[in-house]
Amino acid sequence: MAQRGDGGELRIGLLGHGTVGAAFAAMLPRNARRIERITGVAPVLSGVLTRTRGGSFDDLLERSDLIVELIGGLEPAREYLLSAIRAGRHVVTANKQLLSHHGEELWDAARTHGVQLRFEGAVAGVVPVIRVLQESLAGARIQRVHGIVNGTTNFILTEMARTGCSFADALSEAQRLGYAEADPSEDVDGRDAAAKMAILARLAFETPVHIDQVRYEGIERIAPDDLEYARDLGLGLKLIGTAERIGEDGISVGVYPAFLYPGHPLASVNGPFNAVTVESEEITEITMSGPGAGGPQTATAVLGDVISAMIPPASTPPATERLTLVVDVVSAFYLYLEVADEPGVLARVAHVLAGHEVSVKSVVQKGLRDQARLVMVVHPVLESRFAAAMRELETLDILRAAPRAIRVIEEEFV
Amino acid sequence: MAQRGDGGELRIGLLGHGTVGAAFAAMLPRNARRIERITGVAPVLSGVLTRTRGGSFDDLLERSDLIVELIGGLEPAREYLLSAIRAGRHVVTANKQLLSHHGEELWDAARTHGVQLRFEGAVAGVVPVIRVLQESLAGARIQRVHGIVNGTTNFILTEMARTGCSFADALSEAQRLGYAEADPSEDVDGRDAAAKMAILARLAFETPVHIDQVRYEGIERIAPDDLEYARDLGLGLKLIGTAERIGEDGISVGVYPAFLYPGHPLASVNGPFNAVTVESEEITEITMSGPGAGGPQTATAVLGDVISAMIPPASTPPATERLTLVVDVVSAFYLYLEVADEPGVLARVAHVLAGHEVSVKSVVQKGLRDQARLVMVVHPVLESRFAAAMRELETLDILRAAPRAIRVIEEEFV
Repeated sequence: MAQRGDGGELRIGLLGHGTVGAAFAAMLPRNARRIERITGVAPVLSGVLTRTRGGSFDDLLERSDLIVELIGGLEPAREYLLSAIRAGRHVVTANKQLLSHHGEELWDAARTHGVQLRFEGAVAGVVPVIRVLQESLAGARIQRVHGIVNGTTNFILTEMARTGCSFADALSEAQRLGYAEADPSEDVDGRDAAAKMAILARLAFETPVHIDQVRYEGIERIAPDDLEYARDLGLGLKLIGTAERIGEDGISVGVYPAFLYPGHPLASVNGPFNAVTVESEEITEITMSGPGAGGPQTATAVLGDVISAMIPPASTPPATERLTLVVDVVSAFYLYLEVADEPGVLARVAHVLAGHEVSVKSVVQKGLRDQARLVMVVHPVLESRFAAAMRELETLDILRAAPRAIRVIEEEFV
Repeated sequence: MAQRGDGGELRIGLLGHGTVGAAFAAMLPRNARRIERITGVAPVLSGVLTRTRGGSFDDLLERSDLIVELIGGLEPAREYLLSAIRAGRHVVTANKQLLSHHGEELWDAARTHGVQLRFEGAVAGVVPVIRVLQESLAGARIQRVHGIVNGTTNFILTEMARTGCSFADALSEAQRLGYAEADPSEDVDGRDAAAKMAILARLAFETPVHIDQVRYEGIERIAPDDLEYARDLGLGLKLIGTAERIGEDGISVGVYPAFLYPGHPLASVNGPFNAVTVESEEITEITMSGPGAGGPQTATAVLGDVISAMIPPASTPPATERLTLVVDVVSAFYLYLEVADEPGVLARVAHVLAGHEVSVKSVVQKGLRDQARLVMVVHPVLESRFAAAMRELETLDILRAAPRAIRVIEEEFV
């Protein structure tokens, strides 16, 4: 259980106020009441220390039960975290560079002082790969980890494949949309992904891995031609991080552009998304995907870490909500009708549907001997309305069998 | 921290010895030394209670620090778990029926007695959806959960779509391959998925959800025709569980066959796999997928829960391994050559590659003015050999530009 301030509060000292830090500071008060319901303790921001605004770290530490480090870089982040740990504070960080350089020192200190050091936000934003490696798969001997752990490069490669444009043009587009920084070098040259793979390899294989041991290549030299010819070969291109066992006592950790066949679970991960596949003999493989970066997404991962530090392990909080189970919801439907093959059938069916405010999105009609199949997808409609339309359709003399309906989930994704 | 027996042991009492129970009992000793390295405590099986062999639960409880319930069904599973919780033991279960009927009673008891009740194996095997909802996303207001949470039905629908066969034939095939039980009714009629969605909805929305509140439909009436016409409409069919917020104080929870458009993250989940997509405004969505059932897979989830109960929260165990970073690994490559458009070019390139034991898998050759592009994929080879071949290729007078190479990840997946 976390240390708590007086009055059932958990006082959070925040280091850094950049994209993620600002999102976290905004998210905390918005979610404070819900978190208090879950944990029994109200989280409050005890102060914010930034590089530019300065302030005394020791003062902030004194007033905080938990430190969230989002200041980035190696120093003073390392010194701040070590001080907090030695003072018995739980710490949460999203600092991949720090952990890929000084992870062992920090994890050792956390164990020695009996505090939690959580870092989900350091690798794939809200994609919960750290927690899964550390906890869910603690019982599995992991053979290999494959990851798309940099959203900037995945967006650029997706754009290049989609439009045939050059690396430079795709990078400009990424910068325009906020998916790439003004100085994108750490992303596009593979160093950002290398830091993340060092952390994943450390957790997967229980062996120290320093970022300097990770070989990496970027995507700067990928040409539109490569993507075009690869398509002819049935391949798609991703910047892939790999960490793999080699023989009995070796591992290989690297980051490089790689082609994937369509069946690979990472092949369909497009745009600024991250995804990680973990393979082990016992489990085959599991894949996790989602937005890998962005202020609110990474801040959500950080907040998840903070909440985990506040609640007793594996406690299912009381069901504080009393929501109503709604039965009549909105859905799109696929409708399959066997009808007489005669003029005016479609018009009569459409008339019945329209009478119940059921609107047709697409139709396939095929003749078959003296009958026809009329197959359509209708736009989302209250299920009760659709059911009423179905009941009326059943009374039509042109139907040769009971109508069949199946729901359609309409949402398109990235 | 878990209770521990004398001598640094954690004594695990196992209830049930079916597919998952037997896999767990076999997995535990195989992993005991590694778990001891991670946790500092050696897990040992203190006894196994089964329906057929019988035995005294009270005796087993007395000899156990933690109870793993894999006996299934409502009673005596409920009574056993409540007794264990009241006696201060952490408990791990994979019993979806029990939690979807009596979850609130069990979670209340666990909170009251300050013990852990873990149940990752109850919903999607080793796909870590419980842990992610309870912990990673504790900071997010979840809007919707979509899941393929029954591997049997997903296998059957995949087979029907792939071969055009009937439901009955696909079910027989599933039974032959061990993906469906002799009595498959709970799987194919949607009840199994309904229990799982009740649990997911409870965690996502913090409101009590009983399985009787979940509407469900199965796939028994899906006809090959439906899948064929749906293909014409660009749709794929899955048995989908949904749990969704409706307005401010409503939710809808259901299981039914539904068509998905190709862009949906669940559309590409085929065969006996499970996958769950969680949506929230702050995070967009994350998707997790993997094998949803099977003895070793579910046992791995159970073992992950046991290990989590043994280690302090968010402690990164010491790096007990000292593995070697291997640099020269095996990889397949894509090779792009701009060559003179003259006879014998492919033969000369192939000769150089063969001299370094680099074997060609596929080739695309296209003429372009006076030059040609020779694009090929080579079979996996030691990177040092491939690099040597590249160096020799660079010396050929037929090359018009430096050769370009990109790695290819070969593995095909389900």
